[in-house]
Amino acid sequence: MSETQSLNVGMIGYAFMGAAHSHAWRTAPRFFDLPLAPRMTAVAGRDPERVAAAAAKLGWDSHETDWRRLIERDDIDLIDICVPGDLHAEIAIAALEAGKHVLCEKPLANSVEEAERMTAAAEAAKARGAFAMCGFSYRRTPALSLAKRLVESGALGSIRHVRAQYLQDWLTDENAPLTWRLDKAKSGSGSLGDIGAHIIDAAQWISGTNVTGVSALMETFVKERPVGGDFVGLGGHGGTDGPKGPVTVDDAAMFTARFEGGAVGVFEATRFALGRKNAMRVELNGSKASLAFDFEDMNSLWFYDAADEPNAGFRRIQATEPEHPYTGNWWPVGHGLGYEHGFTHQVVDLVEAVANREQPTPSFADALQVQRVLAAVEASAGDDSRWTAV
Amino acid sequence: MSETQSLNVGMIGYAFMGAAHSHAWRTAPRFFDLPLAPRMTAVAGRDPERVAAAAAKLGWDSHETDWRRLIERDDIDLIDICVPGDLHAEIAIAALEAGKHVLCEKPLANSVEEAERMTAAAEAAKARGAFAMCGFSYRRTPALSLAKRLVESGALGSIRHVRAQYLQDWLTDENAPLTWRLDKAKSGSGSLGDIGAHIIDAAQWISGTNVTGVSALMETFVKERPVGGDFVGLGGHGGTDGPKGPVTVDDAAMFTARFEGGAVGVFEATRFALGRKNAMRVELNGSKASLAFDFEDMNSLWFYDAADEPNAGFRRIQATEPEHPYTGNWWPVGHGLGYEHGFTHQVVDLVEAVANREQPTPSFADALQVQRVLAAVEASAGDDSRWTAV
Amino acid sequence: MSETQSLNVGMIGYAFMGAAHSHAWRTAPRFFDLPLAPRMTAVAGRDPERVAAAAAKLGWDSHETDWRRLIERDDIDLIDICVPGDLHAEIAIAALEAGKHVLCEKPLANSVEEAERMTAAAEAAKARGAFAMCGFSYRRTPALSLAKRLVESGALGSIRHVRAQYLQDWLTDENAPLTWRLDKAKSGSGSLGDIGAHIIDAAQWISGTNVTGVSALMETFVKERPVGGDFVGLGGHGGTDGPKGPVTVDDAAMFTARFEGGAVGVFEATRFALGRKNAMRVELNGSKASLAFDFEDMNSLWFYDAADEPNAGFRRIQATEPEHPYTGNWWPVGHGLGYEHGFTHQVVDLVEAVANREQPTPSFADALQVQRVLAAVEASAGDDSRWTAV
Amino acid sequence: MSETQSLNVGMIGYAFMGAAHSHAWRTAPRFFDLPLAPRMTAVAGRDPERVAAAAAKLGWDSHETDWRRLIERDDIDLIDICVPGDLHAEIAIAALEAGKHVLCEKPLANSVEEAERMTAAAEAAKARGAFAMCGFSYRRTPALSLAKRLVESGALGSIRHVRAQYLQDWLTDENAPLTWRLDKAKSGSGSLGDIGAHIIDAAQWISGTNVTGVSALMETFVKERPVGGDFVGLGGHGGTDGPKGPVTVDDAAMFTARFEGGAVGVFEATRFALGRKNAMRVELNGSKASLAFDFEDMNSLWFYDAADEPNAGFRRIQATEPEHPYTGNWWPVGHGLGYEHGFTHQVVDLVEAVANREQPTPSFADALQVQRVLAAVEASAGDDSRWTAV
Repeated sequence: MSETQSLNVGMIGYAFMGAAHSHAWRTAPRFFDLPLAPRMTAVAGRDPERVAAAAAKLGWDSHETDWRRLIERDDIDLIDICVPGDLHAEIAIAALEAGKHVLCEKPLANSVEEAERMTAAAEAAKARGAFAMCGFSYRRTPALSLAKRLVESGALGSIRHVRAQYLQDWLTDENAPLTWRLDKAKSGSGSLGDIGAHIIDAAQWISGTNVTGVSALMETFVKERPVGGDFVGLGGHGGTDGPKGPVTVDDAAMFTARFEGGAVGVFEATRFALGRKNAMRVELNGSKASLAFDFEDMNSLWFYDAADEPNAGFRRIQATEPEHPYTGNWWPVGHGLGYEHGFTHQVVDLVEAVANREQPTPSFADALQVQRVLAAVEASAGDDSRWTAV
Repeated sequence: MSETQSLNVGMIGYAFMGAAHSHAWRTAPRFFDLPLAPRMTAVAGRDPERVAAAAAKLGWDSHETDWRRLIERDDIDLIDICVPGDLHAEIAIAALEAGKHVLCEKPLANSVEEAERMTAAAEAAKARGAFAMCGFSYRRTPALSLAKRLVESGALGSIRHVRAQYLQDWLTDENAPLTWRLDKAKSGSGSLGDIGAHIIDAAQWISGTNVTGVSALMETFVKERPVGGDFVGLGGHGGTDGPKGPVTVDDAAMFTARFEGGAVGVFEATRFALGRKNAMRVELNGSKASLAFDFEDMNSLWFYDAADEPNAGFRRIQATEPEHPYTGNWWPVGHGLGYEHGFTHQVVDLVEAVANREQPTPSFADALQVQRVLAAVEASAGDDSRWTAV
Repeated sequence: MSETQSLNVGMIGYAFMGAAHSHAWRTAPRFFDLPLAPRMTAVAGRDPERVAAAAAKLGWDSHETDWRRLIERDDIDLIDICVPGDLHAEIAIAALEAGKHVLCEKPLANSVEEAERMTAAAEAAKARGAFAMCGFSYRRTPALSLAKRLVESGALGSIRHVRAQYLQDWLTDENAPLTWRLDKAKSGSGSLGDIGAHIIDAAQWISGTNVTGVSALMETFVKERPVGGDFVGLGGHGGTDGPKGPVTVDDAAMFTARFEGGAVGVFEATRFALGRKNAMRVELNGSKASLAFDFEDMNSLWFYDAADEPNAGFRRIQATEPEHPYTGNWWPVGHGLGYEHGFTHQVVDLVEAVANREQPTPSFADALQVQRVLAAVEASAGDDSRWTAV
Repeated sequence: MSETQSLNVGMIGYAFMGAAHSHAWRTAPRFFDLPLAPRMTAVAGRDPERVAAAAAKLGWDSHETDWRRLIERDDIDLIDICVPGDLHAEIAIAALEAGKHVLCEKPLANSVEEAERMTAAAEAAKARGAFAMCGFSYRRTPALSLAKRLVESGALGSIRHVRAQYLQDWLTDENAPLTWRLDKAKSGSGSLGDIGAHIIDAAQWISGTNVTGVSALMETFVKERPVGGDFVGLGGHGGTDGPKGPVTVDDAAMFTARFEGGAVGVFEATRFALGRKNAMRVELNGSKASLAFDFEDMNSLWFYDAADEPNAGFRRIQATEPEHPYTGNWWPVGHGLGYEHGFTHQVVDLVEAVANREQPTPSFADALQVQRVLAAVEASAGDDSRWTAV
């Protein structure tokens, strides 16, 4: 491996997403033969002590307290953005203009306008050999990649129904604290952008068609929540006596949709589906076959093939065969992978694209399309659920 | 049993629904101690030969070729209506005015106007001691009755989400024949009234709250189909070369909804969900517990109780315990019941209500509320999905 | 139907099994076109009042207090035996010698010796045109019939593994009362004969091969239980202070086995598997395909076909298609059947066999083979688990 | 982390198990705060080129071609043994005698005699401050750790049944090649030691009681297989025309068992259960509760609590809560872990034990007990399945 050229990475942010990305950068070259050797050059964060500790813990060679320094450094080839959405546009555009490749967490931005500027920057950078990718990591879950492959092969015939849900329950408790994820200025939206974006991207990507219009309903069940809690991660329980602040995002978003190819869709994203921990679900019904996925059983893809009738039934395919996407590089069949493998595979595909000077996917343009759906959902929900073109 | 007074029944129609109702009338007194002894006095149908054969096969003592004759007969106490929806209003109103009790299949009618007249007739008849009930038989599936009981007990806390689907696939084949169920004049609507009505009723009944408004999308995927096929039952395959006629109903209906109590809902009904055979599903998420049901595993109710946390999980309750609704009269635990038991339990509850001179449920007024939701869905779908009050 | 010749039935016993059989006799001709019309002529039981009530409740035309009277009556063609196993041999042999057809509940007898005599009587009767059948009703569960059909078609290739369990939990409570099912003199054995017999029969029937030897372990966890409880059905809770009597049968029976065709098997029957209500499970692994069944999801058959690889997975076939065994006479696809349908289908097959003068299956000889396996299991368990030929 | 003392590791072998162990050593300190900092000092293997490549790929600082060199090196504190079972005893004993800590893959040895010598060496080493652990990594799957915790808490009451299966299918194809795993001299046994050992360990560990006796049946379905195939990993397809060699191990092993505490058990291990990819299953039925696990859904533990009756049912606990074993250090709830996390957690527990100078578990003595069960199974299978004390 000594002769492989390196790809020097600088990461901004080191919380939940930063930990997942760090693991991916560390792990990808250990299981996959990469054309470039990722080097974890530097991590940036505002607090000097905490960023130093994070660098040591997560395995970064150095650290900075200003993200701009990462972009200035010549020894960095790629900027990995793991901060809340309100900073995405500024950082990504600066990095791309400085000639860096960019991996940006989803949702791409907090508004279509930002996403459009980012996409324009990505297009411009691409002409100069720098590539941008948005981190819809669920695409790299093997079972979902297999779903995409099956659709592409024509196995489903023409698609009539898309049924997508992302159900969580960590806000069910009315005293769960007010975090940045509940602050529209920071996060752009609530369930919609955080988890709804994932199922919109998955539905469009797997079906191979875009949403053309929506009719939406959004709801905030708990209007204010305790502030100042010592909150880490998702969930948790704030104090009940202290001051409260307003929740400025949606708790739940639901919408019907139409797709370019004639399919109709139903989407739902919520953090109030008690008992559903991470039920990121996608189902497609075609004229010849159907498929269904639930992240709570993430190594399985359910597949119904009408050709099997009358002895047909949804098959629980364990997407762990050597022939399945990514899994041949891991363990024997039936030895399941976990959540973080999607990030590792994302690194694999990104590094290969960069090495081959090809556009990695999802591109910023792909992510902009998701952003437009998010915006149409918000617009429709604010206008009596009226049908709204994307 | 010799001393028990009889309840003489006349049934109109003898197809799929007539067979299910006949089984229920025959079977209910064998497993339950009924306060009145149902007697299968007469069945009516237009074709003399076929109705005679049906009477013999299904166990009716006599038969008529005009439903009006049934209503005229003094030896009949209750009229059981198992014909397409376009005839419901005329028959039910005539029967109620003649002093008969009425059991009418769902959906109650093909329009709100009809349903309103039927409800008025039912109210008037009730004052004279004749009762009317609408046949939403799924209410009597033990697992769904248990769901209702759990909500009534307060186990769920305040309900935030309703998620209801009725997914079938028997129209996936573009050459499935054009039957009365695809003719708006006969059936009123397609998936919406046929199967969507079931999940609307179930959602309102179990949650104990009504839908107040909707935003809807409807679609007809296959616009015309072969006519003249020798079609019996659901599904089937028509000719591909013969003449075709227009499908005048929806193939799929989807809508978001709000409920009186503050819950939001997502509904979907379709006959194009390939691989889903009879997936009548209802899920409720409350502040304290959740429950989920799927008719494809009809003897189970899934129940998540937050009080079990951190070792909580959806419990698969086999709703076959002696303590569960209806099941104590059947088999030992774990010995599942089938589709037709809902009809048998419907007869049990109807006979008991009549004997006790109490209003059986669902009343025509309850069914009218479902009809109003159906109408609002159609109105919204025809008006750019705009929010439409029920 | 008026011209169809009748088949007059006399049933002995009217408890749990009697209720199931009565339902089957009543229902079979309503859904199937039978070549003979079953008539529920008489039921026999010792207590005059209770048997009279049972006749009225279950729909029998007359009743007797001595089972011998049923056999003497000229207006009875078939004797249906629904009493504990210690009476099977005497009744069945008398009935067959009197020229009656016989349907006898399982297990066929309480000993191999009895079963041999019964089988000899059946062979002799057959020569005179009277047929005998043993009531392993699970064979007529559509999903298990489909399993048999798949194996017969060669779909599984050569069978290597049989894995069969029958798990219940109604004796988990140490104070559940001492009933006839726990009395070896009445029942012959405990879990072994009551539920183990079902999985032995299913395994041999579906695989098409017989067990040739076993090594067994049996256990009685609770050695004595309260007597005199007012016990009805399975389960229940006796007093804790009253007198206790000895449990003389096995609570659980486990054994390994070899089959004629080279397959190996593992069997387990217990009433102490807390949470498993009626988990009658059979799995077969062949060289080309596998299948699995669990009665707790009784309308499904799981089928894995190696030909689907690498996108293979166990398919959940809903055994409710028109092409599936028995189900075309009932409801549309996905509308599940229940426990009692197995009995109804048993009546259908029995009546057809009798009308066609063909041997119905399982014959007494088939049931004798099961009895021999039961005896070998008991012998092995009593001899240090030593391998014991059947 | 700079002040943390290091723990220098030398690993022997670098195939499937070596890759899993390497990942664990790399990853554990990134997600857990360890009292010692593992350093991946050296890896050993016979082939100079391949071991050099493995060192680079897997992240080891140096490499050796003779495992004895690792033991001689002063800069190594712990020997991690990832080679076939025939080398375990020699290496482990040498390492322990040299004062190294040892982590040895399972099964501990190829015979009880070897295992006894290893255990004696471990006991002696412990007195000198060097600890030995056997790598039954499934113990560290969070859902199985949670199972252990529930039993320890008394939640199950007295345990009556243990039901354990390890079902794979990668030898179903008769032309799968003859590898070291099918050579008794290398592997000791087939399914029994390779996968049966896992369920024996899990059953004893979770139940907290040891197996006291067994009655067993073993089978080799395919007696010879192609040699010389270019085989990597499990499964694969050898040539069909080339030479064949004898399979000298069992393809399947089944046994009944008794446990110290009065429970009875049924075990089955096979590589011929077509469609079962990695179905490592354990179920325990107690007097108060039951639990069930299947590695094919590895992040779930099914738990039935009789206290929930009559609304009880097996709960699907997603073992991903912060309160669950290990999972608080990873992702939010519902974001599943994978196969390799068991190895990472094994490293965590081992490092903590070494730092605290406590015996890590499973000890060699624990693994010896498993070995004794394996030996009793083989003895019983070779003696007509006769009951054999452990």
